[in-house]
Amino acid sequence: MGAVAHIDDIAEKLAEQFKQTAVERDKIGGNAKKERDLIRESGLLKLLIPTEYGGLGGNWHDVFQVVRAIARADSSLAHVLGYHFINLVTPHLCGSQEQKEFYYRETAKHNYFWGNAFNPVAIQLKAEKTTTGYLLNGVKTFCSGSVDSDVLLVSALVEGQDEPLLVVIPSKRIGVDVKGDWDNMGQRQTDSGTILFDHVVVHDEEVLQQGFYASEFSQLRLNIATFILNHVYLGISEGALQSALTYTREQTRPRAITQTSAIEDPIIQHHYGQFYVQIEAANLVVKKADKILQELWDQPEKITPENRSNLDDALQTAKIFTTQIGLEITSKIFEVMGSRATSSHYGFDRYWRNLRTMTLHVPVDTSIQSLGRKFLLGE
Amino acid sequence: MGAVAHIDDIAEKLAEQFKQTAVERDKIGGNAKKERDLIRESGLLKLLIPTEYGGLGGNWHDVFQVVRAIARADSSLAHVLGYHFINLVTPHLCGSQEQKEFYYRETAKHNYFWGNAFNPVAIQLKAEKTTTGYLLNGVKTFCSGSVDSDVLLVSALVEGQDEPLLVVIPSKRIGVDVKGDWDNMGQRQTDSGTILFDHVVVHDEEVLQQGFYASEFSQLRLNIATFILNHVYLGISEGALQSALTYTREQTRPRAITQTSAIEDPIIQHHYGQFYVQIEAANLVVKKADKILQELWDQPEKITPENRSNLDDALQTAKIFTTQIGLEITSKIFEVMGSRATSSHYGFDRYWRNLRTMTLHVPVDTSIQSLGRKFLLGE
Amino acid sequence: MGAVAHIDDIAEKLAEQFKQTAVERDKIGGNAKKERDLIRESGLLKLLIPTEYGGLGGNWHDVFQVVRAIARADSSLAHVLGYHFINLVTPHLCGSQEQKEFYYRETAKHNYFWGNAFNPVAIQLKAEKTTTGYLLNGVKTFCSGSVDSDVLLVSALVEGQDEPLLVVIPSKRIGVDVKGDWDNMGQRQTDSGTILFDHVVVHDEEVLQQGFYASEFSQLRLNIATFILNHVYLGISEGALQSALTYTREQTRPRAITQTSAIEDPIIQHHYGQFYVQIEAANLVVKKADKILQELWDQPEKITPENRSNLDDALQTAKIFTTQIGLEITSKIFEVMGSRATSSHYGFDRYWRNLRTMTLHVPVDTSIQSLGRKFLLGE
Amino acid sequence: MGAVAHIDDIAEKLAEQFKQTAVERDKIGGNAKKERDLIRESGLLKLLIPTEYGGLGGNWHDVFQVVRAIARADSSLAHVLGYHFINLVTPHLCGSQEQKEFYYRETAKHNYFWGNAFNPVAIQLKAEKTTTGYLLNGVKTFCSGSVDSDVLLVSALVEGQDEPLLVVIPSKRIGVDVKGDWDNMGQRQTDSGTILFDHVVVHDEEVLQQGFYASEFSQLRLNIATFILNHVYLGISEGALQSALTYTREQTRPRAITQTSAIEDPIIQHHYGQFYVQIEAANLVVKKADKILQELWDQPEKITPENRSNLDDALQTAKIFTTQIGLEITSKIFEVMGSRATSSHYGFDRYWRNLRTMTLHVPVDTSIQSLGRKFLLGE
Repeated sequence: MGAVAHIDDIAEKLAEQFKQTAVERDKIGGNAKKERDLIRESGLLKLLIPTEYGGLGGNWHDVFQVVRAIARADSSLAHVLGYHFINLVTPHLCGSQEQKEFYYRETAKHNYFWGNAFNPVAIQLKAEKTTTGYLLNGVKTFCSGSVDSDVLLVSALVEGQDEPLLVVIPSKRIGVDVKGDWDNMGQRQTDSGTILFDHVVVHDEEVLQQGFYASEFSQLRLNIATFILNHVYLGISEGALQSALTYTREQTRPRAITQTSAIEDPIIQHHYGQFYVQIEAANLVVKKADKILQELWDQPEKITPENRSNLDDALQTAKIFTTQIGLEITSKIFEVMGSRATSSHYGFDRYWRNLRTMTLHVPVDTSIQSLGRKFLLGE
Repeated sequence: MGAVAHIDDIAEKLAEQFKQTAVERDKIGGNAKKERDLIRESGLLKLLIPTEYGGLGGNWHDVFQVVRAIARADSSLAHVLGYHFINLVTPHLCGSQEQKEFYYRETAKHNYFWGNAFNPVAIQLKAEKTTTGYLLNGVKTFCSGSVDSDVLLVSALVEGQDEPLLVVIPSKRIGVDVKGDWDNMGQRQTDSGTILFDHVVVHDEEVLQQGFYASEFSQLRLNIATFILNHVYLGISEGALQSALTYTREQTRPRAITQTSAIEDPIIQHHYGQFYVQIEAANLVVKKADKILQELWDQPEKITPENRSNLDDALQTAKIFTTQIGLEITSKIFEVMGSRATSSHYGFDRYWRNLRTMTLHVPVDTSIQSLGRKFLLGE
Repeated sequence: MGAVAHIDDIAEKLAEQFKQTAVERDKIGGNAKKERDLIRESGLLKLLIPTEYGGLGGNWHDVFQVVRAIARADSSLAHVLGYHFINLVTPHLCGSQEQKEFYYRETAKHNYFWGNAFNPVAIQLKAEKTTTGYLLNGVKTFCSGSVDSDVLLVSALVEGQDEPLLVVIPSKRIGVDVKGDWDNMGQRQTDSGTILFDHVVVHDEEVLQQGFYASEFSQLRLNIATFILNHVYLGISEGALQSALTYTREQTRPRAITQTSAIEDPIIQHHYGQFYVQIEAANLVVKKADKILQELWDQPEKITPENRSNLDDALQTAKIFTTQIGLEITSKIFEVMGSRATSSHYGFDRYWRNLRTMTLHVPVDTSIQSLGRKFLLGE
Repeated sequence: MGAVAHIDDIAEKLAEQFKQTAVERDKIGGNAKKERDLIRESGLLKLLIPTEYGGLGGNWHDVFQVVRAIARADSSLAHVLGYHFINLVTPHLCGSQEQKEFYYRETAKHNYFWGNAFNPVAIQLKAEKTTTGYLLNGVKTFCSGSVDSDVLLVSALVEGQDEPLLVVIPSKRIGVDVKGDWDNMGQRQTDSGTILFDHVVVHDEEVLQQGFYASEFSQLRLNIATFILNHVYLGISEGALQSALTYTREQTRPRAITQTSAIEDPIIQHHYGQFYVQIEAANLVVKKADKILQELWDQPEKITPENRSNLDDALQTAKIFTTQIGLEITSKIFEVMGSRATSSHYGFDRYWRNLRTMTLHVPVDTSIQSLGRKFLLGE
């Protein structure tokens, strides 16, 4: 259960506002400055920060409710807000106790919107040791939420060191050039473009002390990313299905002269029955993973390789399931709506485009194979 | 959670015994007298009877654990045991308070195994009023668990009356001719054959007083039947998957010369990953319905058309989902085992035959369409 | 076999040119004036006109080769060119012998590009009898190829008459207002928008004499439309698969460190194997229908309800099959390419958007159900 | 086109006879002596033998028509008859000119039914050179058609030699012990059991001179086996669909009170529409491969690695496609028939059991992956 009262109302109100312009902004792409400012004003950036540091004291249940509600209306904004939380908790996971407190307090105080230059697959960003910290040089891609962010979580390679360096810097630091060049077929307002780093100074205290692999707890970061993605995936499908339902009820033409409305058509009913079952099952697999995540988060000292592996199984299962049913639903809805639903006015193709784009992150085949391997080996 | 200690152990022990002979008995078909007696001896027939009437005081969680564990090994026996419980609680649901107590006590005392002649689609059994009760004449089909039963739950039509008559009679009553003629491609030891009724005397006190449609509570009978079926369906798939897993690990030949074992094959791993996700999701949809059922059962006075409708949605969702993934799994397992797994020695085709037979009960299409219709109408 | 030499070369050359700008033009939408002029210059508008009337003397085999080659590169242009042929042969099918000759000759002479205002579902266009012909008033939607067309095939309702009136008029006739307002998620340069008719004069000789239902031959028009659509559908899938193949070979990152290229990945290979089988089967079902169409076209007097029904079965089968495998392929290709393939630079989502838009024409469910009904009735 | 007149009639007549007892014989398993003798009497064993050697002079088109017609009624008998032809032509493919003639003549003269001990995966049969030939010792599994055969095609390993030895011996030769121990879940009367070889004498003239890999022509044997399997697969699906169609028309209960027959149900119609499309496409992919095979067979000297590779692609495509749609059809037919169709009286599960058993021969995944690999490599 969530920890913050009326969080649903806040989320739904934002979602409703975003929905009004989602189709238009999907066409334009680029940075959703106005909507990001609405998020800032909503107070939601502080949702997950404990009250002692000036936050709302929410938990992951609150977070996913917000992310999911927004994803139904606008999955780009759900994406950047969801990633804000992942980045925000990284000092907690991978930093010292002081860093955890510092970044929570600073974010609460200044209402920071976090972005990232983190993508571990992109290895062209190098960090060189200096007397007081590091110098960053190179390039990072897939930097979701980078444009208009206040702080950036950055990962970089240090020569001769296996583990990447994790640092937090102001997005406006000299030498940081956020290109804002994301122009892809989906998730068009996630600002997931390139950042160039040219002799960017990093101070020692900006380096997260524990790092990525310090403990089972620190490694939760990876799981939290999957958790956020799953809710965005599911939110997209729920939004698609809700749009279709409204359209079929109000606009789809009857298929037979014996019908007064398309909702009487047995085959259309059959499609909706199948959609219902898929969404319902997806909700339950996602929910199971949510519960495990919150339990581990609440008792970091009790995280073991075993229970983190259980969490990962639950999250991967949810990822695979939401990907598969989502791709089917976002494509099939057109068959229960009809040809007029392809008008750009509705922008109904954005559901498929957004989901198709996002679900390529780590190949779903890799997740399926990996789960199967574990299962076969009895691990 | 279950209410009876060690119920798992009892169920698993029985399942283990049934497994030894399941393949052989599947070939023979007919009545599993010896195994039914093992069930009698296990005490499980009293599982659901409240302790005050001499039972074990179990709840539906206990029941499904037993049914599911047995279904993994032998779905015919899971079927007849599961139906025993549905029949056993019918006086509770559709009878008077006295009848409820009487049949619980008698069953506990005599360790009755309940069978049925209930199939509402079969309308060739007529009941004619007499001064002290009724006379039954006609035929009933799909009478699961009829052979070797101690008591029979019977439904019959009374002329000029919409609602069927529900009666409980000893299986050996004069005029009852249990044919034992079930010979179908699956669920071969469920004794789901024909019963002939020739001037069978029914006493007034054997007629369940409330009937089928007396209240929301009495109508739970339909939901409980779906609940039992869902656990048998899922148990079959779990049993199939477990058999395949063991076989692939121990016997399947490597597909490529670079592999030392078939479990290294990426495509076999991929299949198992997909199976894992399907079974995991099926478990969760089934579980959701279980929970609602137990809640309504525990507070009969709080059952409303709304929450019974919710229960029905959850149960239908589970039925549809377990049917679909089960048919896929029980057929595809052969692809991860290989051609030698088709030997009659293993009897691995029984999983598909059993599931295919059972899942035709109410057409799955009808359930899908019906859910979709509700969803479209916003009911 | 085709009847015109080197038709492949001409088609491929055009396709190659269209491919250069297809992604850019998909974004812009609207009328592809320049490309339509390239089609005009290619001579292909006369492809199907018998040589005796000044045409190239091609057959339907030539037509589909051109349409399919272009569809692989740009399905909007394939669509308008394909529909040009359907419209062009309508005087042949539904007109008098004089009209057939007249329109063939005129088209050959002036190199007309035909558009339509034909959509039979749109019933808001009325024709009123005058002394020398008709007056058209009203609206027509889904007028593919209307912008920049030279002549228009129009269908309109005459009060008290079941059969629609078919007329051919110059696109520039006074009172015809081609809105050019098509703005949908796919097939974006098909100019399938609205035409307003305001007291548009039609002369008696512009009315096609036989009409739509005059004979089995005249009714071929419906079948030819499906024939063209099938080749556009299949061309889209072939184009998508070819793009994916090139991308996977050249750009997809290996999934495992043991691989030097993504093409070594067993699961990626498995996906391509499945795609190959689907495309191959699609080719064969489409081909079967092609052959029957040409046979009937060549011997109009031998067309019977039976052999036209066979043609229709073959065409519907091809439509259903190409729709189903095409939607799967155009969505799944991303899984064998990876996340960088979502860049707008490639425009790979256009395959799915184009196919999804086009395949809603007549609901595929309706075609499936209708075939099944025929099969069940043994018709 | 076929080369033998009235071959359809002969095949259909046999199929009709086999159909009467197919369900009963499926239960019993074992050797179908009576039906094999009916095949002997029909003259079909000589179908493929050129007239100059005393045969009927049929071609592969005749063969598949016979195999397919029988497969619809009884796929075990189709299997043994199909394999008879593969074995019969092996001396033609892999022997000398004399051997080809000899075995054709002898088979025509004595009406031999050929069986095999050929399975190349089974490597436990060794051949040791003697002065006049070889001695065979060991075991062979999956020896389809071995019981009641007149001659056996045998493959054995010679130490120090890569290529297996191919020999033809009388089935009754001393030391050959045909176990008749095939007892699997499907294809139950194919006698695909074990043969023990104990010092079995082989004369030099019984060794096929060219061997398996002598030429592109000799390697056709592998392709011909796939060709036969494809027709058995497709025949099974066609038989299943025909049985379902008859049952739905005559026996399935209407699903709604508004229906007078199940054939009016829109969702049942939709299923049949889908089945129709699948079977139709399967027919076309199978047909394409048939045509290529016959062309290569007719001009052995023109067989190149390229055109044999094309043949293999077509055959593998047909194998994959018929496997996939067949498994779906043989399982789904129950949903359009209903629960009473599971009676053992009908034996409708045999379609799935037969197909599931046969399609594991070479894993379909391996074929899919292999086609995909070729496609990716552009081979």
